[in-house]
Amino acid sequence: MSLEPVLERIDHDLSQATDRLMELLRIPSISTDPAYKDQCEEAANWLVADLDSMGIAASKRATPGHPMVVGHAGDSGPHLVFYGHYDVQPVDPVSLWEKDPFDPVVEDTEQGKVIRGRGASDDKGQLMTFVEACRAWKAVHGVLPGRITFFFEGEEESGSPSLVPFMEKNARELSGDIALICDTGLFDENTPAITTMLRGLLGEQLTVTGPDKDLHSGTYGGAAINPIRVLTRIIAGLHDIEGRITLPGFYDGVPEIDPGILKQWQALGFDPNAFLGEVDLSEPAGEKGRSVLEMIWARPTCEVNGIWGGYQGNGFKTVLPSKAHAKISFRLVGRQDPVKIREAFRSHVRAQLPPDCSVEFKDHGTDAASQMSISDPAFEKARNALSQEWPNEAAYIGSGGSIPIAGHFKNILNMDAMLIGFARDDDLIHSPNEKYDLRSFHKGIRSWARILATLNN
Amino acid sequence: MSLEPVLERIDHDLSQATDRLMELLRIPSISTDPAYKDQCEEAANWLVADLDSMGIAASKRATPGHPMVVGHAGDSGPHLVFYGHYDVQPVDPVSLWEKDPFDPVVEDTEQGKVIRGRGASDDKGQLMTFVEACRAWKAVHGVLPGRITFFFEGEEESGSPSLVPFMEKNARELSGDIALICDTGLFDENTPAITTMLRGLLGEQLTVTGPDKDLHSGTYGGAAINPIRVLTRIIAGLHDIEGRITLPGFYDGVPEIDPGILKQWQALGFDPNAFLGEVDLSEPAGEKGRSVLEMIWARPTCEVNGIWGGYQGNGFKTVLPSKAHAKISFRLVGRQDPVKIREAFRSHVRAQLPPDCSVEFKDHGTDAASQMSISDPAFEKARNALSQEWPNEAAYIGSGGSIPIAGHFKNILNMDAMLIGFARDDDLIHSPNEKYDLRSFHKGIRSWARILATLNN
Repeated sequence: MSLEPVLERIDHDLSQATDRLMELLRIPSISTDPAYKDQCEEAANWLVADLDSMGIAASKRATPGHPMVVGHAGDSGPHLVFYGHYDVQPVDPVSLWEKDPFDPVVEDTEQGKVIRGRGASDDKGQLMTFVEACRAWKAVHGVLPGRITFFFEGEEESGSPSLVPFMEKNARELSGDIALICDTGLFDENTPAITTMLRGLLGEQLTVTGPDKDLHSGTYGGAAINPIRVLTRIIAGLHDIEGRITLPGFYDGVPEIDPGILKQWQALGFDPNAFLGEVDLSEPAGEKGRSVLEMIWARPTCEVNGIWGGYQGNGFKTVLPSKAHAKISFRLVGRQDPVKIREAFRSHVRAQLPPDCSVEFKDHGTDAASQMSISDPAFEKARNALSQEWPNEAAYIGSGGSIPIAGHFKNILNMDAMLIGFARDDDLIHSPNEKYDLRSFHKGIRSWARILATLNN
Repeated sequence: MSLEPVLERIDHDLSQATDRLMELLRIPSISTDPAYKDQCEEAANWLVADLDSMGIAASKRATPGHPMVVGHAGDSGPHLVFYGHYDVQPVDPVSLWEKDPFDPVVEDTEQGKVIRGRGASDDKGQLMTFVEACRAWKAVHGVLPGRITFFFEGEEESGSPSLVPFMEKNARELSGDIALICDTGLFDENTPAITTMLRGLLGEQLTVTGPDKDLHSGTYGGAAINPIRVLTRIIAGLHDIEGRITLPGFYDGVPEIDPGILKQWQALGFDPNAFLGEVDLSEPAGEKGRSVLEMIWARPTCEVNGIWGGYQGNGFKTVLPSKAHAKISFRLVGRQDPVKIREAFRSHVRAQLPPDCSVEFKDHGTDAASQMSISDPAFEKARNALSQEWPNEAAYIGSGGSIPIAGHFKNILNMDAMLIGFARDDDLIHSPNEKYDLRSFHKGIRSWARILATLNN
């Protein structure tokens, strides 16, 4: 089955494809807000109907939360499992949107046409790049190139509570040769990327208690332990002066990057000064001797995401507080063991508590890091296909953030996942005025058409 | 003029004195809340009328805020200037009061009779101990023992914005030989005290800024500086492991305590375990080698009164914040120079800022410490008078908190102040269900009668 007519069909159908995406974007499927439960159902129904319209058997599958959509097509060739999510982030503050977030439009901007609306980039627009590529294949050749399972989630923006149980329960149905996930971005506007390293995440909250009530610092100051002081000392001790994390055993399982990958990264022309300069910084603040790309893609971190205690209002209050709190997260890489690191962290904290202080921990969950084994030939095939569509050669890159679904495919279904997406850094996902470049949408569809062709060879 | 008939008169008049106090307590003179402006006026009017009724020329004196009340009596003998305040704290949360805070009652409790209501202890009840002592003197002898200036403020609970300008403008009128301030407490129920050391206070707020906006810790974590980490490191460095404050020159002007005073303190029978145990602590947390009384009365401190930054809500947010904030106060003693210490603190912070971080400071004011020169014979006279009234000998004590009025008498009018009061630790000042022991009121009036007698000798 030849690729060229499929690409032509995609080009001719772009306006209709865009209209279909707009339909889906008009459904306010905000998963985290119970008020939009029906709209999540509606988005799931829309996807079932859309797959059905292409002759792909699909169904809505109930969960304790919002439904999954699962569809199957084809019965021979490599079995690809495509994942995307149809739910979107809330739109607050609505006042910052220049247009109704759920009445999408195609806008002309200085950087070209963009589709503006909540979910345009994250993840409805990305999800539809794959669906449209399949539609074009079906339209031109009557069949899809290989077996494809479509797997759409409706709770990604609200913590995916039903995802793991659903994957476990339906492991057989959802298993295939390789997973395709479209929820990531281009490296830059001309450089596509396959994300092969995802940092994991470990979240901890701790509360240090000293005196059993808030005290007046005039009466008790000097004699009573201050839990804020204790907490700041504990946090200050988490890094050494070289920026390394001090927990014993923390770096166990942290790999050095393969020289071939490092070379690809160097070729990307990443500008650390521009990256930091965009947020008014100039000096990399991570481990000494590491490049900025290593710091954000391949090295573990420990960050304080929140801290609070005592009086925070206007003016001054000489309170000596009873409690101090912090939220701390660790980004994990390679084979770092979240369970061991959590234990090392808690031991470190307990060991530094002075007399009379106690600590309570709250577990905010863990996701181990994911590292794809790019030895599967599908990776190089997909990378070549992407390189043919875009101006620059595609690269294997890392991602500083966590995308738990990739780990679930590995852990539950024993499948590697290829994370390929076309979002751009300025897409304003999770923010007011979210957009998706029409070019991302168009070339994204074409990219998937190419990848489907090559994976079927 | 003999004292005994005055004391008898006080005993016989206690019920009427209590009724008068109740009248004053019924006026909700909450100075910080503009809604109670008229009530503050009303309380000032009540005091003017009460002094007038005793034949003491008094007047209400306008300020930009609530009025002062000033009265003068007598024209020979030592000139005493008595200070108290007629304004009270707000009563929120009203739901925690067992009775209407402005409908005072005399209650029988296990510890004896108490006057319950807002301001009973702080400071209307205390203020009236002095007024009632004067009333008894006038009633018995027709004159007061010496010259007395009455000086009542109505903004003590709202930062005293008019106090310093008023004292400066009326310096001549308000000057005398010694100031008497009734806004402190007994050492314990049987031990009266003259507070001769008051710690000063220096308040600072700092905001550390790193990146110019909140960042996602997945995208930037590891490469971007985290201002919470910077702030915790700065705060952690303010104390050494012995609990001493590390700012250069911080201990300049911190005196060692006179051995005679230390001996008095030892005789007080202060129980550090009970003091700390009351708030569920067991180990003194201040400088190694100092007693708890030294820590809270005679040693300087540095406390974090508030800290905040990043995400503090439910759940977790992997934000890498742009800013982190803290409110920090120093309690000062002896001749520590607040200006120098502020500068040392700010230099310390600036010196520890990593590249790309900036800091802003907000000055929350300073009050130098006050140390009374007890070489004035009036102090020993008053101490003896108190010792005669109460079961135990009176002591010179320190106060961990700041009472700025004492410093103002010293700095503006060059007068020493004797801080004598009869409040108890369990009076619940500033809290719901404030009370004043009837015994404090009664013996407080008698104490002042004795002090007036002895100071006139």
